[in-house]
Amino acid sequence: MIGVFDSGIGGLTVLKTLAEKFPAESFLYLGDLARLPYGSKSPDTIRKYSEQNVRFLISQNVKCVVIACNSASTQMREDVFEGIPVLNVIEPGAETALKVSQTKKIGVLGTRATISSGAYEKELLKLDPDVQVTSVACPLLVPLAEEGWIDDPVTNLIAYRYLHPFMNHQVDTLILGCTHYPILKSSIARAVGNSVTLVESGDAVAAKLTERMNSGEIIKDTSPIQTIEVFTTDAPGHFKKMATDLLAPKNIKNFSVVNV
Amino acid sequence: MIGVFDSGIGGLTVLKTLAEKFPAESFLYLGDLARLPYGSKSPDTIRKYSEQNVRFLISQNVKCVVIACNSASTQMREDVFEGIPVLNVIEPGAETALKVSQTKKIGVLGTRATISSGAYEKELLKLDPDVQVTSVACPLLVPLAEEGWIDDPVTNLIAYRYLHPFMNHQVDTLILGCTHYPILKSSIARAVGNSVTLVESGDAVAAKLTERMNSGEIIKDTSPIQTIEVFTTDAPGHFKKMATDLLAPKNIKNFSVVNV
Repeated sequence: MIGVFDSGIGGLTVLKTLAEKFPAESFLYLGDLARLPYGSKSPDTIRKYSEQNVRFLISQNVKCVVIACNSASTQMREDVFEGIPVLNVIEPGAETALKVSQTKKIGVLGTRATISSGAYEKELLKLDPDVQVTSVACPLLVPLAEEGWIDDPVTNLIAYRYLHPFMNHQVDTLILGCTHYPILKSSIARAVGNSVTLVESGDAVAAKLTERMNSGEIIKDTSPIQTIEVFTTDAPGHFKKMATDLLAPKNIKNFSVVNV
Repeated sequence: MIGVFDSGIGGLTVLKTLAEKFPAESFLYLGDLARLPYGSKSPDTIRKYSEQNVRFLISQNVKCVVIACNSASTQMREDVFEGIPVLNVIEPGAETALKVSQTKKIGVLGTRATISSGAYEKELLKLDPDVQVTSVACPLLVPLAEEGWIDDPVTNLIAYRYLHPFMNHQVDTLILGCTHYPILKSSIARAVGNSVTLVESGDAVAAKLTERMNSGEIIKDTSPIQTIEVFTTDAPGHFKKMATDLLAPKNIKNFSVVNV
C-alpha cells in the first residue's frame, strides 16, 4: 500500500494519476482538512504538519509515502524518512520541465509558501545552470479550486491576472507547482496559450515512482484488486463529494476521520 | 486587558473598532494563523480550536474574551467560559440588524461554516418571529481579503455574483457575518446598493461590551495608556504588514509567536 498526503483536495489529482498508472497498487490517502491550507503557513509549521502526516501513514503500514502537496514538499526533501521511502513533487517536477522545455525558459506557479521557498528555482538551476526561471505566487487559485469554480469566467480572469507576467518572459514550459492547479487547467491553459507546455505533479511523481520501483528500492505490488481509502483529519462534508467526483471512475472504498 | 481572537486578519477589524471605542482598555489579540481559516472546517474542530484559544487568553490574565470570528462564534455561545465573560458576535449582530431594519427582510453573508450552522437565522427568528432571513455562503471573500484585492474589479465581480440573490429578496439590512468582510466593504456596498444597511461585527460587539461593562459584569479600565499586543500561532510574515496597516493609526506594541 502506498501512502499519499495533502492538506485537502489538491493531492487527489496526484492520487488519480498514480491510481491510473499503477493499477496493481493500493493507496491510502490522508487529507489534513483540519489544518488546510498549507500554502499560507510558515516553513516550520508546514514541516511539523508534514512529519505528523508521514508518521501517521507509516503507522498504517504503507511501503512508501508520496507527498502530494508542493508546499509540504518544499519542507520535506528527504528520500527516506524514518526508514520509509518518501517522494516529494519538487525534483520530479523540475526534471520533467527540463525534459520538455526547448527554450530553457521555465515558469513556476505556486502557493505563497512554495514560491517563497524558491525550491523549484534552486532545483532547476542545480540541474541546469542556464535555465531562466520566472515564479509567481497565486494564492487565490486554491480557494477557487476548492469552491469548484471550474471553466468559469471569474477563474479565467484571475488566472490571466496572475499569469500575464509569464508572457513577457516567453516561457515555453510552466510547472503547475500546486496540486490543486490541474483542477483549473483549462483556465490556466487559456491564459498562457497553447504554445506553453504545462507540467503536472502527478505525471512527474509517477515517473519518479517507476524509477524507484525499477531500482528495487520500492517493491512493486501485483495484486489483482486495487483499493483506495481516504482518511481525513476533519469531517469530510463538502470534500467527500469533490473527492468522489475528482477520482471517478476510480472508487473510494471508505472515508474515515482520524487524528494524526 | 481584553482578549480578542480570530483565525487570521479578519478579527483585526473588530479589534480596531474596540480599540477606538474603548481607549482606556488594553488588548491582547490572538491570531490562530497556524490553523486558519476556520470557515471551511467542521463544527467540532472549530469548537476545539476556539476553546484552546480562549484558554490561552485566560492564561494571559485577560478579564474577558471577545470572539472576533463568526465561524468560531457559532460554536461557542456561552456568556461565561471557565469563569471568564465571553462575547461572541452572533447575538450582537442579530440584535443590531433588527434595530436598523425597517422591512424585517435581513440578509446574512458568511463562511460555509457560519451559514451551515444557521446561527444568525435562529437568533433573528428567536428575537422576532416575523423576520425574513436570506443567507448566502461566500467562501472566496476571505481569501480575497487575505490577498488584499481591495477596491478591485475582480472582487467587485465576485461580490456581485454572491450577492445578487439578496436583490431578489429585497433585503434592507445585510449582516456581514464574517469579520473579514469589512475589509471588502466597498465592493459589497457597490454590489447591494446604497439602500441596504451593512451591519459589522465590530460595532455590534462593541455595543454589547458597553452593556456588560455598564451592568458591572466586566470591570472598566481607566488606564491613560492603551496597549495592543498581537500573538499568533504561526510566524506572522505577510500578516504582520496587513495587521499594521489595518490597525493604523493604532500601534501594535509587539508581535509574538505562541503555542496554544
